[in-house]
Amino acid sequence: MDLAAYIRSIPDFPQPGVLFRDITTLLKDPCAFQAAIDVLYSKIEDQTIDVVAAIESRGFILGAPLALKLGCSFVPVRKPGKLPAAAIRAEYSLEYGTNALELHVDAIHPGQRVLVVDDLLATGGSAQAAVSLIEQLGGNVIGALFLIELTDLCGADKLQGCPTWSVIRY
Amino acid sequence: MDLAAYIRSIPDFPQPGVLFRDITTLLKDPCAFQAAIDVLYSKIEDQTIDVVAAIESRGFILGAPLALKLGCSFVPVRKPGKLPAAAIRAEYSLEYGTNALELHVDAIHPGQRVLVVDDLLATGGSAQAAVSLIEQLGGNVIGALFLIELTDLCGADKLQGCPTWSVIRY
Repeated sequence: MDLAAYIRSIPDFPQPGVLFRDITTLLKDPCAFQAAIDVLYSKIEDQTIDVVAAIESRGFILGAPLALKLGCSFVPVRKPGKLPAAAIRAEYSLEYGTNALELHVDAIHPGQRVLVVDDLLATGGSAQAAVSLIEQLGGNVIGALFLIELTDLCGADKLQGCPTWSVIRY
Repeated sequence: MDLAAYIRSIPDFPQPGVLFRDITTLLKDPCAFQAAIDVLYSKIEDQTIDVVAAIESRGFILGAPLALKLGCSFVPVRKPGKLPAAAIRAEYSLEYGTNALELHVDAIHPGQRVLVVDDLLATGGSAQAAVSLIEQLGGNVIGALFLIELTDLCGADKLQGCPTWSVIRY
């Protein structure tokens, strides 16, 4: 299945000059959504994974089915102020603006093998922040998995030493 | 499985007087997360459903696996400014504060049978907003499904005429 055909490109969102890759058109098609999960799974099925750490919010849509399919823990990496228990925070620069991510301190146990999941790898700032949070808790990041990668933005370079996998590349 | 045993209760979050029901402790346990999805599915498996409309963000974690299991469309109902294409908006009062939700105008086709999914039914404001958005697009809301229901807040009463199902009740 040509998954890229289900992605809608929207110019100038969320700000002028950005070409936004919209996955809602893929999620709306039951076959395409299932195929996307299956292809994502195929990228990492030979890995030993204890935890899927998914980045809010679109990462949740892909990370939750993957965690269930892998039979491993699902851990949300959230925007500031959303996690109710003790959490650590990492700030990062976004393609457009700045933001921060948080992780519950009891989300990861030292030595656990963690896969980072998000819908899109752009500059790699949010993924790098997630990796940093996981490593602060003693987790072993085995890689980062994305449905879409914007290769021009070189996000994979920022995740030095962390294997990255992606399905659709622009 | 006693799913309620996996929910952590955190007092005074996000503001004093609110007892927050934290599902991250359930999501972290692979068996409990799978059991939660299975029980949610069992509540609605005899319904005809075309679309799962999940409410950002925790609704995505439950709604995405359910949509895949049902073989139906997944549609995100999002916080303001997150959807890149033409969208409609509904405002609502929250247990603590006010907010709004948005839905892409092409997310639902007239006559489609839509299930609203979220992690928690409190006062029912966000679910009511989601129902309103779906109905504005001609969708037929067949019900609303929640992992947790805070029965004291009578959210189900607000969703007049819309069947609600929940798994854990406080």
